[in-house]
Amino acid sequence: MDDCLLVCHQCKERYPIGKQNKCKNCGGILTAEYSDRYLKRAWKQLNKKEKHGMWDYKETFPPVSDEDIVTFREGGTQLLPSISIGEKLGLSQLYFKDETKNPTGSFKDRSASICVSMAKALSCPGIVASSSGNGGAAAAAYGVKGNLDTVIFIPENTPADKISQAIFYGGTVIKVKGNFSKAYHAAADMAEKKGYMNVTTTFLNPFGLEGYKTISFEIFDQMGTVPDYIIIPVGDGPILYGIYKGFEEMKRIEMIKKLPKLVCIQAKGCAPIAKAWKEKRKVISCKNPMTIASAISDPLAGYEQDGEITIDAIRATDGRALMVEDFQILEAGRELAWEEGLFVEPSSAVVLAGLHQLIGSGIIEKKDSCVCLLTGHGLKDCSSYYPKGGKTAWINA
Amino acid sequence: MDDCLLVCHQCKERYPIGKQNKCKNCGGILTAEYSDRYLKRAWKQLNKKEKHGMWDYKETFPPVSDEDIVTFREGGTQLLPSISIGEKLGLSQLYFKDETKNPTGSFKDRSASICVSMAKALSCPGIVASSSGNGGAAAAAYGVKGNLDTVIFIPENTPADKISQAIFYGGTVIKVKGNFSKAYHAAADMAEKKGYMNVTTTFLNPFGLEGYKTISFEIFDQMGTVPDYIIIPVGDGPILYGIYKGFEEMKRIEMIKKLPKLVCIQAKGCAPIAKAWKEKRKVISCKNPMTIASAISDPLAGYEQDGEITIDAIRATDGRALMVEDFQILEAGRELAWEEGLFVEPSSAVVLAGLHQLIGSGIIEKKDSCVCLLTGHGLKDCSSYYPKGGKTAWINA
Repeated sequence: MDDCLLVCHQCKERYPIGKQNKCKNCGGILTAEYSDRYLKRAWKQLNKKEKHGMWDYKETFPPVSDEDIVTFREGGTQLLPSISIGEKLGLSQLYFKDETKNPTGSFKDRSASICVSMAKALSCPGIVASSSGNGGAAAAAYGVKGNLDTVIFIPENTPADKISQAIFYGGTVIKVKGNFSKAYHAAADMAEKKGYMNVTTTFLNPFGLEGYKTISFEIFDQMGTVPDYIIIPVGDGPILYGIYKGFEEMKRIEMIKKLPKLVCIQAKGCAPIAKAWKEKRKVISCKNPMTIASAISDPLAGYEQDGEITIDAIRATDGRALMVEDFQILEAGRELAWEEGLFVEPSSAVVLAGLHQLIGSGIIEKKDSCVCLLTGHGLKDCSSYYPKGGKTAWINA
Repeated sequence: MDDCLLVCHQCKERYPIGKQNKCKNCGGILTAEYSDRYLKRAWKQLNKKEKHGMWDYKETFPPVSDEDIVTFREGGTQLLPSISIGEKLGLSQLYFKDETKNPTGSFKDRSASICVSMAKALSCPGIVASSSGNGGAAAAAYGVKGNLDTVIFIPENTPADKISQAIFYGGTVIKVKGNFSKAYHAAADMAEKKGYMNVTTTFLNPFGLEGYKTISFEIFDQMGTVPDYIIIPVGDGPILYGIYKGFEEMKRIEMIKKLPKLVCIQAKGCAPIAKAWKEKRKVISCKNPMTIASAISDPLAGYEQDGEITIDAIRATDGRALMVEDFQILEAGRELAWEEGLFVEPSSAVVLAGLHQLIGSGIIEKKDSCVCLLTGHGLKDCSSYYPKGGKTAWINA
């Protein structure tokens, strides 16, 4: 039926819901698109019920039968008003959306849950993912729970704890020499050969965005309105695009009048999107990624178009993209922990470093309401903040 | 006033609320005790308000003024109905109380928050703690937030990530050669010399129990009734005693009619309490602690009376104590992650290993309602489940 289709972002070709992950016509990125009727009917049902997690919004997804849903109660994360940073900055409406409390410790559980559920709905015998860590742990947890053969390709610079986590959940973990792009292509090859669903959390899998869009629904439900700004850590950007998509769907059916401005934050050592934005040019992949923010260190080599679709979403919301330095990221991580008790990995702390920049340059004003998205738990990447066993004293007691 | 006092568990001597941490008379353990009038008045106010976290129960604590409260929104943790383990075991009422989602990743935040707040209320210039990890990270986070000089003594076998976490929060971390008891005595010395509050989460600080008792209040609020069993990981047992104290206070003012049976689970390699229970004798400290469950590996050397007060609480609830093997702990940890999506440290996984034993021996029956307390996040002690960088394959892609 025409109510729910996969549509190419580039050439607008339409396909029925299935496991294909690129446009057969032009190689473009596919997203799930719905008729207004589909969305209106979904929200008519949604407005009646109390919501606790991501699957309470299932009416806005492609149809999945209940027995195919693989869930660990992901989503439904808290929107925390700032304890003290907001006051220091003069912002009366600063919030943190705390995705670190998801089952495997990151926002990637939203994507893994819906992608694995769709893999079951579409009768795939297994799933495969490439990941710098968070996505791999999430894919392993949900793939194994869904009784699917589960294979994770991981680049060699992945923090040891993130590898342990994926292995712990029972996935087959394969390390790939080189950066994330190498692991990306290895996973794509395997998916192709074995007919597995590729749940890599780039734009390869259209359903991941459907998981992320629920962040927008939750923010709207929690605030009762649309915030002025949402600040988002970005590797290649499905999280940003998903959040855009959520608000855009609500706007299309006239639930809301405006979109929040989405701000993409990247680490200076790997910022293909923020550099393209700044220099007003096409996205060029990063040749030599060098940042402590491992979870967003994605050079986009060979899939530069992911950066373009992310930029399209930023532009559509009148947002922007910017870069922060590693030392600012570490400072921001400590500030979040010391001031707010929010312990996040460096790749999440970028949002506070970015907020400082946005306030310093006068872009965000004191009257603006602002949501910072905290994507991954600090315990996932502890050693980046502090070398293990470093500055401790020893005594003989 | 007599409404709220510190009372010696052993000789019943009474003291005004203050920073002393042992009975001056007999060296016994002190707990905060309230008149019925105090508790009834507290609950009269409590029953009127919506509750989100631990401090919403502050009327049941010794008086603390709002400006002294140091909080990161600890407590208010979810009580999760089992997804699949309950069904497999034939238990229709199996719940997990998820303390891993607290700000620093463990239940110790409840204790740290109230102890640091009391330190401020009692004008202490600093805090000191000894810890095998979780308590240290919590004390560091809250001590620094409270602008108090913060010193943490840590035994040498503490997992590297837990040390990093305490250092990250900005505490002064001092490693002590030897086991936890050595660190315990080093901290006590320093507290004495400098007039700091000792917030070590054994029974040294009476206020920690007040934090833990809110777990009982939350369970009662969440279930609307008292469960038959609560299964609890135990090092020396303040968590178990605190939970007992919460239900006991509710029973005393006739809010509830029965206490839940509290089950103490220890790792076989360090089980001074469970062994004393089994052999019906006094608690003897463990000479050579040997278990992967580092957070509950407490030999009680020099403070064996902590084990006795824990046993008093178990007995008062008609509960029991038992031991589980390391291999069972690891299996239980994987089962929790695979089945429930709950990733906990080995020291928390002991509760599921214990539950299997209790069902196998017919002690817990299918009709019983049962709450398992999950105390610490799996990312705190990942390497115990899996040697870092171990079973991964390498490919050249």
